Amino acid sequence: MPRYALLVEYDGAPFVGWQRQSSGLSIQQVLEEAAAPLSGGEPVRMMASGRTDAGVHALGQVVQLDLARDLPPERLREALNFHSRMHPVSVVRVARAPEDWSARFSCIKRGYRYRILNRRARPALDMGRVWHLTLPLDAEAMHRAAQTLLGRHDFSAFRAAACQAKDALRTLDRLDIARQGDEVVVETEARSFLHHQVRNLVGTLVEVGLGRRPVSWPRALLEGRDRSAAGQTAPAAGLTFLFARYPEPLDWC
Amino acid sequence: MPRYALLVEYDGAPFVGWQRQSSGLSIQQVLEEAAAPLSGGEPVRMMASGRTDAGVHALGQVVQLDLARDLPPERLREALNFHSRMHPVSVVRVARAPEDWSARFSCIKRGYRYRILNRRARPALDMGRVWHLTLPLDAEAMHRAAQTLLGRHDFSAFRAAACQAKDALRTLDRLDIARQGDEVVVETEARSFLHHQVRNLVGTLVEVGLGRRPVSWPRALLEGRDRSAAGQTAPAAGLTFLFARYPEPLDWC
Repeated sequence: MPRYALLVEYDGAPFVGWQRQSSGLSIQQVLEEAAAPLSGGEPVRMMASGRTDAGVHALGQVVQLDLARDLPPERLREALNFHSRMHPVSVVRVARAPEDWSARFSCIKRGYRYRILNRRARPALDMGRVWHLTLPLDAEAMHRAAQTLLGRHDFSAFRAAACQAKDALRTLDRLDIARQGDEVVVETEARSFLHHQVRNLVGTLVEVGLGRRPVSWPRALLEGRDRSAAGQTAPAAGLTFLFARYPEPLDWC
Repeated sequence: MPRYALLVEYDGAPFVGWQRQSSGLSIQQVLEEAAAPLSGGEPVRMMASGRTDAGVHALGQVVQLDLARDLPPERLREALNFHSRMHPVSVVRVARAPEDWSARFSCIKRGYRYRILNRRARPALDMGRVWHLTLPLDAEAMHRAAQTLLGRHDFSAFRAAACQAKDALRTLDRLDIARQGDEVVVETEARSFLHHQVRNLVGTLVEVGLGRRPVSWPRALLEGRDRSAAGQTAPAAGLTFLFARYPEPLDWC
């Protein structure tokens, strides 16, 4: 069965998240139903490089599709976009993938961006795309605190209760925080993240940015491994899945 | 009567444009109705630095408000945002303005950005914020053609039939076009623009970008002064009003 990689962009607002749920429409369901007419009625299953939560956006989600039919990548892209056209989901590129390639397990680096709109006035153009915080944030203090979390650690303090990973050991490669005008932008990269890890890190670093906690606090939390001691989970709307990287670059069409 | 300047951001999609119309809701109406409770029932009239069309967005529209009451700028901003909270309009900053200041007539420079999403796949996250063109554009050719339009000219060829300006003489200071990934971004500045001027320029330059017309064509159109010979009016959704500049900088709160 030919294997394909899809590069997918979506607005997470109307969905229950990437993964199929009985509670509502998921991005996975939209794409699998768009692919069904191409497989001659056979059920189609897809797997994403990272399962984004309800409300989380993606500019470069990578999805794996095994299809009963051999289609040129361009035709597959056009067909998937045609059948998903009622939804804010777009298949930007398609590549043929090797048989042993997995969108999830072959991935060696994932990147996310988290946007905080930090001003009194609510967002107008970026409503649903940012976390709106009205009290002034010290982005430099947040950045300094973030640097103490880089490297390989047990991230239990920043892990969702529902997280299904076997252990909480992860290697955080990048966690940069910088002010860009009225925005405070967080950019982070790791081989893999725990469930809610980015949003819990952001919610914790915001406590430092507000001056409620010292720069040393996030590192102390990390070492304490106690989720209940850390900051709130930052809202989903501010988070965007930017990219998934693989050892062998895919030949995107 | 104290005069104020408002720095306003809006998503143009749900509105008939800046200006009040009997045909539907305008940004002007939203803001004037938000200000009415502050003026003790007196009717409030506002004037914008530039009247944007239906569907056109703004990040830095500047609006003039004469209010019967003297309010601290911060309180005015909070009150206007409270009373307009059901709409994608946000008063980002407020400044006290001199008595002889006019948002429209004192303005010495206006800036717009036009975004074209130039790829096969439709937009997902930027739906309603870009013009989606699937055929490949040569942004460099567009930029070269644009440079031939800079300076003081009669822009009749790029003026809407409904344009109310007395003459079509305008000075175009900047018209830069560059590819940024899948986007072709147009940035333009002038003291003032004619009705539809930016969108007509973009629609014409796109003909060059598609290779249907030579780089010399827009300049020949300009000299011919015949609107019917130029390209189409580019869709409103791609256009954003970025800034209005004044000889004396305003003291924004």
